[in-house]
Amino acid sequence: MKALVYNGSRDVSIAEVPDATIERATDVLVKVTTTNICGSDLHMYEGRTNVEPGTVFGHENLGEVIEVGDAVSQVQVGDHVCLPFNISCGFCKNCERGLTAFCLTVNPGMAGGAYGYAGMGPYRGGQAEYLRVPYGDFNCLRLPEDAVEKENDYVMLSDIFPTGYHATELAGVQPGDSVVVYGAGPVGLMAAYSAILKSASLVMIVDRHPDRLQLAKKIGAIPIDDSKISPVEQIMELTKGEGADTGCECVGYHAHTPQGQEQANMTMNNLVQSVRPTGGIGAVGVFLPEDPKSSDTLAQQGKLAFDWGLFWTKGQHVGTGQANVKAYNRRLSKLIASGKANPSFLVSHQLSLKDAPEAYRHFDARENGWVKVLLKPAG
Amino acid sequence: MKALVYNGSRDVSIAEVPDATIERATDVLVKVTTTNICGSDLHMYEGRTNVEPGTVFGHENLGEVIEVGDAVSQVQVGDHVCLPFNISCGFCKNCERGLTAFCLTVNPGMAGGAYGYAGMGPYRGGQAEYLRVPYGDFNCLRLPEDAVEKENDYVMLSDIFPTGYHATELAGVQPGDSVVVYGAGPVGLMAAYSAILKSASLVMIVDRHPDRLQLAKKIGAIPIDDSKISPVEQIMELTKGEGADTGCECVGYHAHTPQGQEQANMTMNNLVQSVRPTGGIGAVGVFLPEDPKSSDTLAQQGKLAFDWGLFWTKGQHVGTGQANVKAYNRRLSKLIASGKANPSFLVSHQLSLKDAPEAYRHFDARENGWVKVLLKPAG
Amino acid sequence: MKALVYNGSRDVSIAEVPDATIERATDVLVKVTTTNICGSDLHMYEGRTNVEPGTVFGHENLGEVIEVGDAVSQVQVGDHVCLPFNISCGFCKNCERGLTAFCLTVNPGMAGGAYGYAGMGPYRGGQAEYLRVPYGDFNCLRLPEDAVEKENDYVMLSDIFPTGYHATELAGVQPGDSVVVYGAGPVGLMAAYSAILKSASLVMIVDRHPDRLQLAKKIGAIPIDDSKISPVEQIMELTKGEGADTGCECVGYHAHTPQGQEQANMTMNNLVQSVRPTGGIGAVGVFLPEDPKSSDTLAQQGKLAFDWGLFWTKGQHVGTGQANVKAYNRRLSKLIASGKANPSFLVSHQLSLKDAPEAYRHFDARENGWVKVLLKPAG
Amino acid sequence: MKALVYNGSRDVSIAEVPDATIERATDVLVKVTTTNICGSDLHMYEGRTNVEPGTVFGHENLGEVIEVGDAVSQVQVGDHVCLPFNISCGFCKNCERGLTAFCLTVNPGMAGGAYGYAGMGPYRGGQAEYLRVPYGDFNCLRLPEDAVEKENDYVMLSDIFPTGYHATELAGVQPGDSVVVYGAGPVGLMAAYSAILKSASLVMIVDRHPDRLQLAKKIGAIPIDDSKISPVEQIMELTKGEGADTGCECVGYHAHTPQGQEQANMTMNNLVQSVRPTGGIGAVGVFLPEDPKSSDTLAQQGKLAFDWGLFWTKGQHVGTGQANVKAYNRRLSKLIASGKANPSFLVSHQLSLKDAPEAYRHFDARENGWVKVLLKPAG
Repeated sequence: MKALVYNGSRDVSIAEVPDATIERATDVLVKVTTTNICGSDLHMYEGRTNVEPGTVFGHENLGEVIEVGDAVSQVQVGDHVCLPFNISCGFCKNCERGLTAFCLTVNPGMAGGAYGYAGMGPYRGGQAEYLRVPYGDFNCLRLPEDAVEKENDYVMLSDIFPTGYHATELAGVQPGDSVVVYGAGPVGLMAAYSAILKSASLVMIVDRHPDRLQLAKKIGAIPIDDSKISPVEQIMELTKGEGADTGCECVGYHAHTPQGQEQANMTMNNLVQSVRPTGGIGAVGVFLPEDPKSSDTLAQQGKLAFDWGLFWTKGQHVGTGQANVKAYNRRLSKLIASGKANPSFLVSHQLSLKDAPEAYRHFDARENGWVKVLLKPAG
Repeated sequence: MKALVYNGSRDVSIAEVPDATIERATDVLVKVTTTNICGSDLHMYEGRTNVEPGTVFGHENLGEVIEVGDAVSQVQVGDHVCLPFNISCGFCKNCERGLTAFCLTVNPGMAGGAYGYAGMGPYRGGQAEYLRVPYGDFNCLRLPEDAVEKENDYVMLSDIFPTGYHATELAGVQPGDSVVVYGAGPVGLMAAYSAILKSASLVMIVDRHPDRLQLAKKIGAIPIDDSKISPVEQIMELTKGEGADTGCECVGYHAHTPQGQEQANMTMNNLVQSVRPTGGIGAVGVFLPEDPKSSDTLAQQGKLAFDWGLFWTKGQHVGTGQANVKAYNRRLSKLIASGKANPSFLVSHQLSLKDAPEAYRHFDARENGWVKVLLKPAG
Repeated sequence: MKALVYNGSRDVSIAEVPDATIERATDVLVKVTTTNICGSDLHMYEGRTNVEPGTVFGHENLGEVIEVGDAVSQVQVGDHVCLPFNISCGFCKNCERGLTAFCLTVNPGMAGGAYGYAGMGPYRGGQAEYLRVPYGDFNCLRLPEDAVEKENDYVMLSDIFPTGYHATELAGVQPGDSVVVYGAGPVGLMAAYSAILKSASLVMIVDRHPDRLQLAKKIGAIPIDDSKISPVEQIMELTKGEGADTGCECVGYHAHTPQGQEQANMTMNNLVQSVRPTGGIGAVGVFLPEDPKSSDTLAQQGKLAFDWGLFWTKGQHVGTGQANVKAYNRRLSKLIASGKANPSFLVSHQLSLKDAPEAYRHFDARENGWVKVLLKPAG
Repeated sequence: MKALVYNGSRDVSIAEVPDATIERATDVLVKVTTTNICGSDLHMYEGRTNVEPGTVFGHENLGEVIEVGDAVSQVQVGDHVCLPFNISCGFCKNCERGLTAFCLTVNPGMAGGAYGYAGMGPYRGGQAEYLRVPYGDFNCLRLPEDAVEKENDYVMLSDIFPTGYHATELAGVQPGDSVVVYGAGPVGLMAAYSAILKSASLVMIVDRHPDRLQLAKKIGAIPIDDSKISPVEQIMELTKGEGADTGCECVGYHAHTPQGQEQANMTMNNLVQSVRPTGGIGAVGVFLPEDPKSSDTLAQQGKLAFDWGLFWTKGQHVGTGQANVKAYNRRLSKLIASGKANPSFLVSHQLSLKDAPEAYRHFDARENGWVKVLLKPAG
């Protein structure tokens, strides 16, 4: 089958790889119809991780079931399914409590597995024609009749919509709250969108890319351009000096100053200042336990010079980590089905699989207008 | 009246000060019968804060009501009451949600007030003969008939028992959990004690002072001496490589290595390593937004070189800050009344007020056996 | 001052009564600018309670502060304030946990007090020119600059908006849920509105009055007319046989069959059937511990022939009781201020105080179009 | 293999039945070493359900794995495992949220499956030599090294310990609470035991059987004999007129007055009176949607004459239904392993399988001393 393969730093190509197949009786085999490029794919693409050449990328996948293993009992051939980026067993100590991003059995020695991702187990990604889905009954979200019609909405349930929503859950966003989101990339936009769905009274989102700030405005968030004026100052003004009730970190270790300098602690320290005493923060932007290629000594060890003293004095709390997609994807699918959520608003490009290498290049360059790319391997 | 007064770095004395009186119609006046010296009093005693000479210390207070203001409706003369260290109004945005440690009205410009404490408002402390209690109906916990008999237990409701309990709440300790507590001072011991009361299955507590480790053992915790072997290693062994389900930080910015070097990030980074993925951490040890007298550059700015990358990858969460004493003191008082909790087990000294300066000297030197000092101003 | 006074069954009039005044140092005196007639006022109006002649009705009040007691510290003359219908002290065992509908001190011997209401203490209501507000700092919600402009929205914070919201909290409504509300009176409409604000995916509301069903449709709920087809059947069809995820009871003990027969257990038993296994139910419609004038023997004792066996087998849960208004009014006020909620959509009449007796007559007759009446005592 | 078989009302015998085998690749086969007789087995034994002759009873099972299906990945031959009485798939809408007592796939058309139980699916029970366990990876709790030594403790994790614990969760028992439990049968004793483990300050338990009240006292609960004095009265006295903070229903539809008359609403109505306003109630005693053989008209339809008016006025809440065993069995197993819980204290009899018919007779007669019977099919 054809798949997007990583060859080395900033080098991916479409290649023939062995077909995905049913390997265990609990597997499901899916013909991929939509698979997105994620901002975190760029971490690997840029050669900053230890991902091996030959890896097939792609963890935001949706498709049609074409075969099921003998032990699969609910999922059926012909089902349209959306797959959480996390692969999980459903029965370990973490999965049984719904913490599927930290499955203890699918990636032994680590907590958590995923498709086509550095350090997340031996699973091929879905930027390909076919995808093997382990523990199919547990991992497939079966979609309703409008699955094809709203495919660009439903595919967001694989990662960024639940991930953005997770940020708001970790932060504890409640109706009426003011919320600040750092980062208006796809995940940050989904966090803002989730906060709006939860009836936050004021949703502010900090970025400096005009296309993203424009989208933020379109969904009803207040765009905050941090390229000229301190975002903390702007937030304090919008909240009459009080600070936001809650905040979300949706940037990760790649944070840059407006001047273009990498500064991994920038967004978290800004959040501590932007959020009011007793407020909650949800951090879903990716950070790494080590980043040997960083220029910063602390960052190399995965450390931040964190404003802990202020954080503690303000009595704030923070929750972190990858989203347990299954905790949210079913309920969010109901919002798509009822027309109350349309996360596809941020789709900027729909391309065929063969155009993927080109798309990686544009997306990696953060070119204006390249917000979210969807690949359609089935044509 | 007589009171303990701060004169300057490591200099306190008993002096005559103006009597505490009813100043507002909602005040209550208390004759102090027990008032404790707290580890955080030492931060001021050591001259490391901006507390002003003339300040009367003492935020862990219990006594008998001798006068009530005209607008007080429930508290009566003769009541034995225990006072939360936090002074709070009961009606601001934070108080109405139970976040009384972050009251917005009693200390304008800041979130939170307290008796006799640097930066916590103009309220005199209770290491004195009498104490003025603002918003008496809200701030007084009225004690049952055994108030005098169990006074050394009930006085712990003013701060350290709720504060230790708060650590376990922030961490999310549930029955059956394994818990690690860093710091076996009074607050750490109360955190361990609270975890035991919540039926944690395994409670480990890290320290190096023999008297404290001994007390830890006495209440059923596993004492972990970090002076020779890495505590993280010991915890991993006790949890069969899994890490603790939850953890508590009860040391604060004064953390020292076993070799005696101040290292403010030591306990939090050890916690991130000691706690399993998805685990929760409660941080109640005091940290400051700035510590100009520290020798460490980051610490001067209130920052920690925090293992954020590992923390995030493990999907941990942390809650921080001073305890909302009123959230817990009433239910904990029921445990004392029913004989199911006896927090006075850690009392090492009961002294008269005049002995307080001497007690500060011993306690500040962390002399063996000086675990918890109670002062009895009424003789 | 002028006030609406109860004279006896279905007999109210405007009369001169002694002025409301500051009685305790913690009181606030308010000039009432809007006060609503509530469905529960009709329970008293109809002579079915033990309310005494001479009582001034009115527990949904908003106005301007014209005097404050000496011990009031935050509320100021000139403030526009909305008053929760529950009067509460702020410091008892229930209030300190936010359960202000069950205050233990303002109405000794009972849990809970209110303005102008049978069995809820000696407090006069606000269908009058002036209102005494006990514990003013605790009970006044101070409104922002648009207080006058949006007065008809803000006044809903006194009772029905928080009460409807409370129903959804008790039921545990989450984004994506399907919700069924029994009763499209003002409280039911507010429950549906709250569920919509929480991004329920499907909100169904059962009633038979065309004006109410019309309003339900207008806010995006599915109106279900129970006058011809069983509501349970209709709900099962709309949820594809699954039942609603959650449900709200907003009718109370006055429930009638479509044929006009009083049947107090109708709505709860319909809810048990309409809600799926594991689902939650919030019950805010008023029920009484005894109803001696009912024609039904069980109802006389305050009992229902409740489908407990089915309820238990389905593993449902139910929360009940009057709303703790202060738990929600502040956050809901933010939604009004930001224009994200406009609860005044259900206002059908704005009248002067002198028109109140007439309004009671129409409202009691459930005349079409009499959905919600606001009185304007200040003209 | 040998198994206990139901022949008809009050008639069970040991018979040869076809061996349990692996039927699906996800199955596990267990040699049963301990299997308990449950109070709810008596409902079937007494002929009051529609259970069919030939049914093998037994839903409280523990044993050793002797074979695993091809798709089983974690459970291994030789593992000692305890089986939740609920059979669940792990991946349906309910299971994925931890609501395993309401699995939507193992018993199509119903929510929830179990071993050897009326209406709970086609699964044979474990009062037999061998047991087939569907979805073995999900349903087996693998026990630690002391599995055999503490077998009589661990077997309680199959049902009654989690069920009693569930009652306290549904009621919302918190440290310091007062709790009243109606019913001192095995489940009621486990509810009281769970409340004690959660550091309730006062645990009261109502029954009239001397052996059970004796056991209650032994674990530190206050036994309340309802045969002479009203239990509500006794509880009011013990709580100084306030009522218990929380309550548990552990009797079910078979409730009898002290005079021996069946009265299904007795315990729930007593709970409503015994629990304070705002208090929570957990109801785990079994009720049925219909009970055609009852002498009471309401009870025949599964209805109770429930004190709803008082319940509502007090603002109480109630949660119901079978326990989601997997939500608790792992954490409770840690308490057994660490020696902090010993639920085997209530074992009164250990018998071989052949003695089971005799044991049913004694247990059904509620003979003094027959509190909990364990069968040992492996000898």
